[in-house]
Amino acid sequence: MSDFVNVAVDAMGGDNAPVETVKGAVEAITADKRVKVFLVGREPVIKEELKKYNYDSAQLEIVHAEEVIETGEPPVMAIRQKKESSIVKGMQMVRDGACDALVSAGSTGAVLVGGQVIVGRVKGVERPPLAPIIPNINGVSLLLDCGANVDAKPSQLLQFAKMGSIYMEKVIGICNPRVGLVNIGVEEEKGNALTKETYPLLRDCRDINFIGNVEARDIPLGTADVLVCEAFAGNIVLKMLEGVSDALIHKIKAGMMSSLKSKIGALLVKPALKKTLKSFSTEEYGGAPLLGLNGLVVKTHGSSKAVEIRNSILQCIAFKEQKINEKIREQMVLDD
Amino acid sequence: MSDFVNVAVDAMGGDNAPVETVKGAVEAITADKRVKVFLVGREPVIKEELKKYNYDSAQLEIVHAEEVIETGEPPVMAIRQKKESSIVKGMQMVRDGACDALVSAGSTGAVLVGGQVIVGRVKGVERPPLAPIIPNINGVSLLLDCGANVDAKPSQLLQFAKMGSIYMEKVIGICNPRVGLVNIGVEEEKGNALTKETYPLLRDCRDINFIGNVEARDIPLGTADVLVCEAFAGNIVLKMLEGVSDALIHKIKAGMMSSLKSKIGALLVKPALKKTLKSFSTEEYGGAPLLGLNGLVVKTHGSSKAVEIRNSILQCIAFKEQKINEKIREQMVLDD
Repeated sequence: MSDFVNVAVDAMGGDNAPVETVKGAVEAITADKRVKVFLVGREPVIKEELKKYNYDSAQLEIVHAEEVIETGEPPVMAIRQKKESSIVKGMQMVRDGACDALVSAGSTGAVLVGGQVIVGRVKGVERPPLAPIIPNINGVSLLLDCGANVDAKPSQLLQFAKMGSIYMEKVIGICNPRVGLVNIGVEEEKGNALTKETYPLLRDCRDINFIGNVEARDIPLGTADVLVCEAFAGNIVLKMLEGVSDALIHKIKAGMMSSLKSKIGALLVKPALKKTLKSFSTEEYGGAPLLGLNGLVVKTHGSSKAVEIRNSILQCIAFKEQKINEKIREQMVLDD
Repeated sequence: MSDFVNVAVDAMGGDNAPVETVKGAVEAITADKRVKVFLVGREPVIKEELKKYNYDSAQLEIVHAEEVIETGEPPVMAIRQKKESSIVKGMQMVRDGACDALVSAGSTGAVLVGGQVIVGRVKGVERPPLAPIIPNINGVSLLLDCGANVDAKPSQLLQFAKMGSIYMEKVIGICNPRVGLVNIGVEEEKGNALTKETYPLLRDCRDINFIGNVEARDIPLGTADVLVCEAFAGNIVLKMLEGVSDALIHKIKAGMMSSLKSKIGALLVKPALKKTLKSFSTEEYGGAPLLGLNGLVVKTHGSSKAVEIRNSILQCIAFKEQKINEKIREQMVLDD
């Protein structure tokens, strides 16, 4: 195997495939010579897209996959039956070691199921969490779990805290990351049965830097680097973050167009505003890794543009070089 | 009893009491001749504050209460022991019919406990939900439950949907309000055990206009008028809404100060921006009613300013005139 960080990219996944997936792949290999991308999908379509670009052909390969898993398909059946789909083929490449990672903007359900069934869990990991990086006013936090499996157990939340801490420290570079338990009050006794049982597990764990409960209100302030919760709560946090940002920006833009004076003002603030809003967009930070698998699987937004695909691919470099999976494996052995 | 809508106001509750509570009370009686306010709290302090204002003394009375329940106190014990507190005295006035409603910016726990223990539930109501009005890009929605009791039952969520529909139709004036179940996907089979069991109850209920599951991402778009969820989820929705708005506004303001050009632009857009942000602030819409009690109890933010106190008091007029509690009582009898 080469010295490249080999990343399979689901060329057919997402609303903007293959245009944006191929573009993002080319941008990634242009940005970093350490990456080789394997574009998995319908070869003629990918070839046609690639004609638009100049790139180093040593860094790019096409892997033909005839089928595509659609967003609406029941994930378990899709993974089982569509053996020739871009997601299944990409996952197999990770499982077989031909690739270090798969990046997909396709069906979340299929990515989650395929990750567990094809790539497989690290021994000891009870549930691999889907862990998006979310912006806060000072930087970013990791939010886990945002997957499809709700009603988690306290022992699973403890594992999320450990895996999330490793990821934030080694991939994002935050030393001794602060772990917070998403809750409806800061006091230890607050919350539901799950948070009440999880709190002492996190408090007594010596492998993490637990700072206590974090109220949703403080999440955008960046109070914690690693935010632990079960997937129902995580989904609400993530979707509210995206929904409120979008709604507020929509309102602000409409408000600025309400008079001639404010229209002129809007022209003047536009560049600064654009930069600000970019730093608060979830799409800027690459996709969400599915942690605890025998290889890296990154799920990006279904609406991903090239920038998110590119950033997700580049994120795989640190993941490999920092040997994240080895570290998670060691942690699980320690706990055994 | 007079023809007034009689509202007890906890003059001592909240971070800005008594300055803002007294101010808000005076503003309310000045704004509407139908209201009479009973300022409950330490008489000398209230009297001193009232010296600042001119008002119609027929519309205002002071009810002395020596004690104050602090935010940190265990609520059950505080309600039991501090018989002379402003919250307990105000609640007793509602229970005894001397007042139609109590407005308090004090301890949420004490308000929730006191509401149940002193004012008492309407017969048939399993759990009185705390129901804040939240802004969306086109208007407002009612979010229930945001109380302190988590892990609700499906039958309770069904009651929330019914009480919330009555409130939105009669107090806010939204005809045939759309009821949505807060969930992590729109399909019926999505979610956790609670949402899966609740969905068919809401779908089959003929007293409400159920539109299905609502993802958190669509809450700020105003997809539903009545948002039903248990309190853990509701708390996250509410606090994310507030937290993301504040964080984004902070970022935008800082961004606009980053260059001379954008500073000039900021001056020009400021009035329009202020108006926009005001319409998206949770404080503009008055407090959260605790529904299903034998009288109205409204909890406002701990950080309430006069505007929120005033709006909360004025909200009580429609609640009384539209006979909301009678309608809730009828609904519960129907279900019996």
